[in-house]
Amino acid sequence: MNTEITYKPIGIINSAWKKIDDMPIQSVDAQNTSGYIKLFPEYAKGLTDLNGFSHIMLLYHFHLVKGHSLMVTPFMDTKSHGIFSTRAPKRPNSIGISIVELLKIEGNTIHFSSCDILDETPLLDIKPFFEDFDNRINTQKGWLGNRPVKKTLSDKRFK
Amino acid sequence: MNTEITYKPIGIINSAWKKIDDMPIQSVDAQNTSGYIKLFPEYAKGLTDLNGFSHIMLLYHFHLVKGHSLMVTPFMDTKSHGIFSTRAPKRPNSIGISIVELLKIEGNTIHFSSCDILDETPLLDIKPFFEDFDNRINTQKGWLGNRPVKKTLSDKRFK
Repeated sequence: MNTEITYKPIGIINSAWKKIDDMPIQSVDAQNTSGYIKLFPEYAKGLTDLNGFSHIMLLYHFHLVKGHSLMVTPFMDTKSHGIFSTRAPKRPNSIGISIVELLKIEGNTIHFSSCDILDETPLLDIKPFFEDFDNRINTQKGWLGNRPVKKTLSDKRFK
Repeated sequence: MNTEITYKPIGIINSAWKKIDDMPIQSVDAQNTSGYIKLFPEYAKGLTDLNGFSHIMLLYHFHLVKGHSLMVTPFMDTKSHGIFSTRAPKRPNSIGISIVELLKIEGNTIHFSSCDILDETPLLDIKPFFEDFDNRINTQKGWLGNRPVKKTLSDKRFK
């Protein structure tokens, strides 16, 4: 079962974020920042009926991250934690997730806001967000605890 | 940019679901079903501090799905829709996401409930769930609309 799994990007994400530092680290911190996806034309038919959704999940590859670390100090803390207890990009499999707001679909171009994704990021998947299935309340948040979540920008630590 | 991306499973998900039909289709429908992950030992250090979280996201490969379809009739509807407006597994890149409840971590074994994942599924990533970043409310849900979401089981359609 320990064989490699190979995916092909389905498109490219374009954004105003051109470098890995000074970016918003969560899409909820990036509500006024828009981006767009150029889906490769062969997948355009798969967008049918997506325009009825207000929120979509984007799964993508952190393409500028090299290698991985099992212990990292996340942007939101000053202590190190296991990589799987953080959202840091330097993961064994560098897959990122952002929940963004869908603005408009024109042909194979998908415009969205709340963009916390680096320019030229290869897109792996788009999934509709269903609040009935995807929200959870009264959760325990480990090392983050109940500290107020303050808006934080990235730096170069995971380059 | 249209090059292949290769990942290696970080572990295997074990569950009571041995075949692709008659499974819960969402983790919220599987609250009484537990499963466990055998993380490959080389990644165990990355679990440090994960035990403080009540909910985690699992990203995995739908290993029994062959090929993809751009139009599918999802389990929750009788009409066909573009694959990216559904959670159906027969996707260009067959990556699944489940938000599950963390029960216990023992060494490199992670016990969880709300398991809607097939036995022997290769695991790609574990991320902590942060309700401050991951919940969305007042969303538009496309073809699902405001129909009450009824508990549905899978069948063989995406085999």
